[in-house]
Order: sequence, then structure tokens, then C-alpha cells
Amino acid sequence: MAQTADDRGADDGRSRRHREILEVAAKTICEKGYEGASMQQIALACGLTKAGLYHHVQGKEEILVEIMHYGMDIFEERVLSQVEPIADPLERLRTCMAKNVLLVTRDRHKEISIILHEHATLTGEELARINARKKRYVRFLERSFAEAVAAGQIRPVDPKVAAFAFLGAVNWIYKWFTPDGQLSDEQLAERMQDVFFGGLGPRPNDIQEASS
Amino acid sequence: MAQTADDRGADDGRSRRHREILEVAAKTICEKGYEGASMQQIALACGLTKAGLYHHVQGKEEILVEIMHYGMDIFEERVLSQVEPIADPLERLRTCMAKNVLLVTRDRHKEISIILHEHATLTGEELARINARKKRYVRFLERSFAEAVAAGQIRPVDPKVAAFAFLGAVNWIYKWFTPDGQLSDEQLAERMQDVFFGGLGPRPNDIQEASS
Repeated sequence: MAQTADDRGADDGRSRRHREILEVAAKTICEKGYEGASMQQIALACGLTKAGLYHHVQGKEEILVEIMHYGMDIFEERVLSQVEPIADPLERLRTCMAKNVLLVTRDRHKEISIILHEHATLTGEELARINARKKRYVRFLERSFAEAVAAGQIRPVDPKVAAFAFLGAVNWIYKWFTPDGQLSDEQLAERMQDVFFGGLGPRPNDIQEASS
Repeated sequence: MAQTADDRGADDGRSRRHREILEVAAKTICEKGYEGASMQQIALACGLTKAGLYHHVQGKEEILVEIMHYGMDIFEERVLSQVEPIADPLERLRTCMAKNVLLVTRDRHKEISIILHEHATLTGEELARINARKKRYVRFLERSFAEAVAAGQIRPVDPKVAAFAFLGAVNWIYKWFTPDGQLSDEQLAERMQDVFFGGLGPRPNDIQEASS
């Protein structure tokens, strides 16, 4: 099972402080760029001395790595682990989309999403590790689409293309959605499900509506 | 009408050289980060002296701005201006998706996509200008979805959510698709259309297939 954000660090208080540091560091890195943000600036934003910051992390690359894993922890805790047990594949996918949409729209830390999805600075083992966690989600989606096709719940679409279309539709949200707009996040989740799944499965009612 | 990549700069030779510089600069910026890439390094990568580079552009921010507009020029030339004249709204959207998928997969310069979609460094007027060009595409998609709904071609989905789901599905491709994989770019374009549009409209044949 995936470890959750709360599993990281035995001491709860220290763990919370550590997460706060990652959140503030993510903000600083997004504002100034990874190369532009110095450890001094990150420390200052966290209300720490540079030495104090080095007490928590070994360096800037470690901060980047930890921010990404923190983002994946939150995702696995609030989305993946919640929907994996759902037996019905189409229901699993629909619920997964709604939960993922709400994670993207409600998460206070958009900067963590940005770093998780846009930062190509990592290389080697660290990159492989974070990519493996992302790939686990892709495989889960592909498997669920294939199951839904096999069960006759949706048309025979390509599970890989469907999985990445799902991911793109959901992960793109942080780039355009503003929670103070005309559309609430609940409505967005519902309408995104509707656009994506509403027509995939054959629904006789729609045909009646369209021809009436 | 939108200006195309070829409209920029009267002298064709100089225009081509200018585009090459933008392409190489995009690569350098993606490799080293915007803050990390110096004008000296960009010049070197372009085979220019720093003074030579300043002959073409005023500074690093201008390079970033020009790369983004270059990306939008290519997009408008190869996708938007090609599909805008299509009268049938559903056909317009389907063709638009295929052309946009192929632009993303075939464009030699993935770095330009990355900078266009991921670089939040711009502010003020320059940011507003590039956002206005992006918004033009969003409005085009929304309008086309609304027309397709009004024409009874697709179910009554939310045009804004449909437009951003379309954009997300297509724009996410550069993050995962490798042209040397099992899926060709033509297949990807076709299957993405299938996932996205295949089920949106009521199709009695699918119901027969599913129940047979």
C-alpha cells in the first residue's frame, strides 16, 4: 500500500512542520524558478535560517524530490487508495475522476501540482522513482478502462489513449480553473464526468431525447 | 487573420535564422531552466557571440516571449486557420483534434510546447498578449461545442468543460507520447477522436454491438 502524507516521519509535529516547509518552498520555487530560488530565499520564506533549513533537508534537489513525493502522497491518499477497492470498473473510473478533479481544485497548494507535473529538473534514480509512482496511476486507469470494456460497460476504446485523455482532461484543470468563477468545483467534477463518460456507454435515453 | 510563422520578418532568410535561434534557445531554456540559462549559453548554443545574439533579440525575456508567439504562430497556421472554415461544428471539432494531436506529436520542437504551456515567468502586457491568443482557441472550441449541441450532433454538455477537457487531453500528449512506441501518431489522433467524440453522439449501432 502507498504510504500517506501522515506516514512520513514518526513524530507528528515534526512531520507537519516538514510539510509546511515543502509547501512554502514549492511557492518560492514557482515564483522564482528552480534555478532562481536560492536556499537562502527558501529559508527566509520558511522563517528559518539557512542552517535551520539544512536541518530539514540536504539541499535544493532534495526539496524538489520531497515536494513531488508529497504531491503523490496526497494524491494516493485522497484519490487512488479511495477508489482502488471499488469493484465496478466504470464506477471506479467515474469516482476516480470526481475525486481527482476535486483534489486539483481544492488543494490549497497549486504550486505542488505545478512542480509535480512541470518540473523536468530531476534525473536518474530520483526521476525514475517519481515516474514509477505516476505510472502506477496510469496502469490503474488502463486496467480499469480495459475491465470496463470487457464488462461491456463502455465501447471498445483503446485503454491507453483513454487513460491519458482522462489524465490530460483532469490534470489540465489547474491551468485554467478558478474556484471563484461561475462554475463550482462540484459542478466541474460532475460535468467533466458527463463530458468524458456520459457518452462513452450506450444510453438509450439520450437517443430518445435527441429524436424527440 | 492570424499571422503565420512565415509572415514574421520580411526577409525570408533572416526570418528562418531567427526561428532557428528561437528553437535552439527553447532547448537551452528547457535544459537549464529560464533562470539557469544565461544569454552567453544561449548564444553559444546558437553558434553566436553574445553580441551577435543581441543583434537578434533585446534580452532573455524577449526570447521567451518570442518562443511563445512562435509556438502560437505554428499552432494557428497548422490547426486553427485550417479548421475555422469547416461549416459543420462536429466535423470542425473532430478535425481540429486530429490536427492538434498531429501538431503535438510531429512538431520537432517539444521544447516550444513546454515553454508555451509551462512557463509562468511572463507578467503584465506580454502575459496578457499570449493569454489572449490562447483564449482565442478556447473560445473557438466553446463556440463549436455549443453549435454542435444546438445542431443536435452531441448531447447537451457544458461547452466550457468540454473545451477544456479537449484541450487537456490534447495538450497532455507531449508529456507521455513517444513516436517510437507501439502507437503511431495517426493511430493516436484517430483513437483520441474515438475516445472523445465516439460516444458523445448517440449511436444506435453501439447499442446493438453491446447487446449482441
